[in-house]
Amino acid sequence: MKILDKGICSIDSVKANGYREGKYGVAVIYHENSTCVGVYTTNKVYAAPIDITRKHLENGKASAIIVNSGNANCYTKEEGIRKGLEMAQLAADTLEVPVEDVAVASTGVIGRQMPLNILKPIAEKSLANLSNSRENATRAAEAILTTDTVKKECAVEHALHDGTRFKVAGMCKGSGMIAPNMGTMLGFITTDLNLSHEVLQESLNRSIRKSFNMVVVDGDESTNDTVLLLSTNEVEGEYDDNFQEALDYVCISLAKQMARDGEGADKFMQVEANGCRNLDDAIKVSKSVVSSSLVKTALAGADPNWGRIISAMGYSGVDFNPDNVSISIGNEEKDVVIVDRGEVTTYSRPELLEEAEEIMKEKTVIIKVNLHDGESCITAYGCDLTCEYVHINADYTT
Amino acid sequence: MKILDKGICSIDSVKANGYREGKYGVAVIYHENSTCVGVYTTNKVYAAPIDITRKHLENGKASAIIVNSGNANCYTKEEGIRKGLEMAQLAADTLEVPVEDVAVASTGVIGRQMPLNILKPIAEKSLANLSNSRENATRAAEAILTTDTVKKECAVEHALHDGTRFKVAGMCKGSGMIAPNMGTMLGFITTDLNLSHEVLQESLNRSIRKSFNMVVVDGDESTNDTVLLLSTNEVEGEYDDNFQEALDYVCISLAKQMARDGEGADKFMQVEANGCRNLDDAIKVSKSVVSSSLVKTALAGADPNWGRIISAMGYSGVDFNPDNVSISIGNEEKDVVIVDRGEVTTYSRPELLEEAEEIMKEKTVIIKVNLHDGESCITAYGCDLTCEYVHINADYTT
Repeated sequence: MKILDKGICSIDSVKANGYREGKYGVAVIYHENSTCVGVYTTNKVYAAPIDITRKHLENGKASAIIVNSGNANCYTKEEGIRKGLEMAQLAADTLEVPVEDVAVASTGVIGRQMPLNILKPIAEKSLANLSNSRENATRAAEAILTTDTVKKECAVEHALHDGTRFKVAGMCKGSGMIAPNMGTMLGFITTDLNLSHEVLQESLNRSIRKSFNMVVVDGDESTNDTVLLLSTNEVEGEYDDNFQEALDYVCISLAKQMARDGEGADKFMQVEANGCRNLDDAIKVSKSVVSSSLVKTALAGADPNWGRIISAMGYSGVDFNPDNVSISIGNEEKDVVIVDRGEVTTYSRPELLEEAEEIMKEKTVIIKVNLHDGESCITAYGCDLTCEYVHINADYTT
Repeated sequence: MKILDKGICSIDSVKANGYREGKYGVAVIYHENSTCVGVYTTNKVYAAPIDITRKHLENGKASAIIVNSGNANCYTKEEGIRKGLEMAQLAADTLEVPVEDVAVASTGVIGRQMPLNILKPIAEKSLANLSNSRENATRAAEAILTTDTVKKECAVEHALHDGTRFKVAGMCKGSGMIAPNMGTMLGFITTDLNLSHEVLQESLNRSIRKSFNMVVVDGDESTNDTVLLLSTNEVEGEYDDNFQEALDYVCISLAKQMARDGEGADKFMQVEANGCRNLDDAIKVSKSVVSSSLVKTALAGADPNWGRIISAMGYSGVDFNPDNVSISIGNEEKDVVIVDRGEVTTYSRPELLEEAEEIMKEKTVIIKVNLHDGESCITAYGCDLTCEYVHINADYTT
């Protein structure tokens, strides 16, 4: 797998652009007659653009995606639908494609009507200068940010088993999984491999389970979460697991970038649950640890507080024997085993606690837990809980 | 119902005491041959004293409760059981009761062995000066605190339908629902009404569902949560709903005191879910709102951010129509209706948002949500999420 460096424009035929004014931005991704599928928030309260996009993608086709930041267009009723459609129509008119082939997405404040007087001029500027350049990929990735501090992109080139080369390229926004008011996870992924929308949908679902669904910043779920996967259909080939591998790679990379940029986050935390009876247990255990306010504050304080880890495992709802559990705290290079099959190693070897403390001071901390009860494993991604998180979310005004 | 002011000693025959040295404390509650029942944490990782107490209360009887703060005696294996029993034995010897009639409870750091050299002398001082005085009730309530900033007590006198007067008195600790390392909810309630342990158990379960189980500070569940209800059996009478009312009152009061004293909390939040299809839905909706990091930080920032409230309702797992929802923000005196059956009232009446902002600055904020979909309702208790919470939990060292 080869890493590419042109963001969403890593696929040559995809054009994009983005433009920003103050807290409002509009990004456009364009490739006529693409196959396109989506995955959306499960929040009962979901935004108008989700209604529109879901409908427009029913036939598995799209030619363009238009995304705005600054307003989520959520809890806005008929007026919200009307305004979302107006954004889609603007893109359709400029690009000369049917409005039904335009997907829309929004992120920002919820419960307020979209200020089209502000957003339309921004959209017009974006639409007027679409291209396949590195600069435009950057503009698109930046235009969709809200509380994010950095743009998030990932692109790869890979080969099917028969040698056919294809690309997968993505960009996303989200400071976590995350704030309905400002955060909101939006992800846009493109590929040039010609696959049916059914195969794309299945493949996207599979990747999302391992990536975006495993990110927790504050446990809140947005009203606007949307991930779209668009294929330009230029490369002929049959789906095989190398396509899945490439898509997983892009999604997991984007997921990690979001966790690392979690609101107020100073540190990135990865929690691997191993030795679980089934995948469902592994998900529960890893997400319980990565979500725990006490584990998150311990990370902020660089405290290798394994008691909080095992307690979070204990209330995850998974049945396990505490006396079989192993817990280590580590980084990319090493693991410090703090609990070894129920035995606390630091009682007899206090130097291990000191080693773990040093690791906890680093920017990336990998916590591994093992239930020694089966073969299933999964990794969850998160970050520390800092005062900065409280500031960002307390000082924000409706 | 008459409010009494002698804490756990409001029942004349109950003796108590507490003593503290630095971060360690021991409290004792004593009444020979009492009926006694308990409710414990559902965390798979639970502390040694829970093992001991569960066993000792199998016959529904106890004569004394001995509680220590500073060490949770959790993840301590056989040595933990041995040391917990040693504490029970000390109480048994001093009070001349069988060791099986002593209940034990612990709160504090987990994963460390109990320092009996420190705790036993403190326990001896507590045991040597048991009495029914106001001062001793205070000492007992204070000895069990950890990160709590104030003692928590409530006692009432009430009458059964036939006029028989009885009392219920309680004390608890817990800065929420809450930290395995420092928090831990412990509650001890006494009554003089002679009820079988089966009736006491049912009655306690019922009260706990409405009170302690409805408190959320940080969503973490302790390894040591224990609530014991002890009857001195002095007043003869048949259980009726006035007993439940008195027990509910004491438990809800204690629960509110815990939420108000949540770690780092500056404000108390009460979330009433109304008009739900069933009680389970009401619990899910109210707890989802009270637990949301975004609602909690909005409270800290005095921001009447109803978008975060409806979003938290939306991901609660409860099926409802967002267009039927009403949301108000208020205090004991008034409610400001922000969303009225799906209509955002503040669009046409911005002064309502200002009114809500003023209320959000107060120390107590009552959020009411109504799904207009049934008759079930319940109230959850919580607090804001502040920088101080992060400090308390980040700067704590194992």
